[in-house]
Amino acid sequence: MAFNFTVIKKDASSGARLGRLESGHGVVETPAFMPVGTQGGVKALSPRDLEEMECQILLANTYHLYLRPGAEVVRELGGLHRFIGWNRTILTDSGGFQVFSLGALRKITEEGVHFQSHLDGSSHLLTPERVVQIQHDLGSDVAMVLDECIPYPATKEYAMASTERTARWAERSLTAGRRDDQALFAIVQGGMHRELREACARRLASLPFDGFAVGGLGVGEGEATLHGIGEFTAQLLPEKRPRYLMGVGRPQDLISAAGYGYDLFDCVLPTRNARNGTLFTSKGKVNIKRAEFVRDPRPVDEACACYCCRHFSRAYLRHLYHAGEILAAHLHTVHNLYYYHRLMDDCRLAIREGNFRDWAAEFKRQNSQAIF
Amino acid sequence: MAFNFTVIKKDASSGARLGRLESGHGVVETPAFMPVGTQGGVKALSPRDLEEMECQILLANTYHLYLRPGAEVVRELGGLHRFIGWNRTILTDSGGFQVFSLGALRKITEEGVHFQSHLDGSSHLLTPERVVQIQHDLGSDVAMVLDECIPYPATKEYAMASTERTARWAERSLTAGRRDDQALFAIVQGGMHRELREACARRLASLPFDGFAVGGLGVGEGEATLHGIGEFTAQLLPEKRPRYLMGVGRPQDLISAAGYGYDLFDCVLPTRNARNGTLFTSKGKVNIKRAEFVRDPRPVDEACACYCCRHFSRAYLRHLYHAGEILAAHLHTVHNLYYYHRLMDDCRLAIREGNFRDWAAEFKRQNSQAIF
Repeated sequence: MAFNFTVIKKDASSGARLGRLESGHGVVETPAFMPVGTQGGVKALSPRDLEEMECQILLANTYHLYLRPGAEVVRELGGLHRFIGWNRTILTDSGGFQVFSLGALRKITEEGVHFQSHLDGSSHLLTPERVVQIQHDLGSDVAMVLDECIPYPATKEYAMASTERTARWAERSLTAGRRDDQALFAIVQGGMHRELREACARRLASLPFDGFAVGGLGVGEGEATLHGIGEFTAQLLPEKRPRYLMGVGRPQDLISAAGYGYDLFDCVLPTRNARNGTLFTSKGKVNIKRAEFVRDPRPVDEACACYCCRHFSRAYLRHLYHAGEILAAHLHTVHNLYYYHRLMDDCRLAIREGNFRDWAAEFKRQNSQAIF
Repeated sequence: MAFNFTVIKKDASSGARLGRLESGHGVVETPAFMPVGTQGGVKALSPRDLEEMECQILLANTYHLYLRPGAEVVRELGGLHRFIGWNRTILTDSGGFQVFSLGALRKITEEGVHFQSHLDGSSHLLTPERVVQIQHDLGSDVAMVLDECIPYPATKEYAMASTERTARWAERSLTAGRRDDQALFAIVQGGMHRELREACARRLASLPFDGFAVGGLGVGEGEATLHGIGEFTAQLLPEKRPRYLMGVGRPQDLISAAGYGYDLFDCVLPTRNARNGTLFTSKGKVNIKRAEFVRDPRPVDEACACYCCRHFSRAYLRHLYHAGEILAAHLHTVHNLYYYHRLMDDCRLAIREGNFRDWAAEFKRQNSQAIF
């Protein structure tokens, strides 16, 4: 089945939309949050845990899987879905963000990115064409182009040169061979400069990409700039294509961004926080490590129906955390991702029922003090 | 429901027996292996994972739970079953083994064991009576007496003095108050001296304990001595009571010990090996870390029906292990404990069908070279 995206309903009072993304591995109702499975597994969860929380799409990372176990190994083993035991939709990030995080270990040229592996120091060159090819081998449903995530702060001169190169790379990506049923998304960069964001968005929007992402946000620019650039850029993207806000991820950020018209999100926040003992609830964030929970018989969130909340007390979770038990990471991750998925359920329901603006305002009001 | 144990069938060609242990939390068919949940959780597994593999009894550790989160906390939260979310049978080890492992941090007197916590250095005294009381607070189905696990090697003089003290402690344990539905098992010590084992077993067997354990084996004495003392001691224990061989745990050891007439086993081997990437299979041990598995599409064990083997390849498990993913520990533990539970199923079936000796011989023949 070929990739397809349909906007089912547009919200009257915001840019929010209800959508339906179809891939060769099923349907993704949007707005949707994608749990991060960097190395081919969401940390501390098995695929059935994700199925149980009705997760419809996972994110995996091209850079990491390219280095280990290698794209050819994955291909030989039947592709990423089979390799990781996940039969629903997979989006692979290109690894641009990871490569650029390597700092001194990488060098950017027009051709691509030369870098040394963070695992064994071996030398590699990733070009826009090669990155598409690797994702072809991995067999994800949605591939991302190679981009440069511009550091913050950056001079306008650097941001312009980088953004233009990212756009040229995107054009080259379209020339690389890929399967008909694998979608390819472009990534809008431009730093914190609206004119660069606009130029990049318009240039990429004119090309036959299946979807458009906005990258380079959440890199230290502060909340106001993130939301300002995020909202501005969303409006420049084709209405009929899915829009993906990369790496931005607090609950209130997702709700705001859904209101700007974004359809897809990913972030390590719920999974990383889980492993650190910070849990999201309907009444605010809970730091399970705290002494106040030592005898607390309540579940993390009395309004939550996840496996963790149905079976275990805050006291037990705190005990497991302090005892260094792997089970703590597992149960906390189950809870946090369940919370994110139900948040997206609620978001879609609000759009469907035409009360997104009120719902979003109420969510932010309830959570403005307690949680974030 | 009060504790009860029934021998259903005795094997004609060995000491093996098929049994049924009933507690207030269900039935345990014996011979049975008890996964180790030291701190109130089997490492990397949730209770439902254990339920799925048809685990009927868990072991938890009194010493660890006494220190953290504390027996009173567990009691206040409704007891250990509720605290850890496990509604089947729980046996709590007394912690004698753990206390004696503290070395310089502990001092033994007739009264009990004075020791400093391995967590915060705080001073504690555990007496035989107090250990029963703590297990009363924890609310396990089967409590164990405080004993001294004699170091190996030890002089006969020391072993005798220690064994006699352990026996006196066992007598004192019976005077401590406990619930009617909580069983109390004595522990036979005696080092590697048959006359001490015999004296200890006879003395304890004359007392109204609900079951009898053999401790102090697997401490470095070597396989021949372990099995010699293990077999010798089993024969000295009352036929109508359950017999528990503590901490001994390779698959072939369990089968031999079932043949000596033991009913219960525990060992960290399957769970610890799992976290180290060593997996038990019907064809021998598999070290999943090895390079030969990098492209191996087969499950760990093609004869295994566990969640791990039904969904994942050796190649993926190897990848997860090398990538440091928690999921590796989880999946490997699911597999190894599933293997142990099916081994016990097979063992019980062989006794039931009257071919235990042949089955045990065949198991050892098949596994003598490949596995162990």
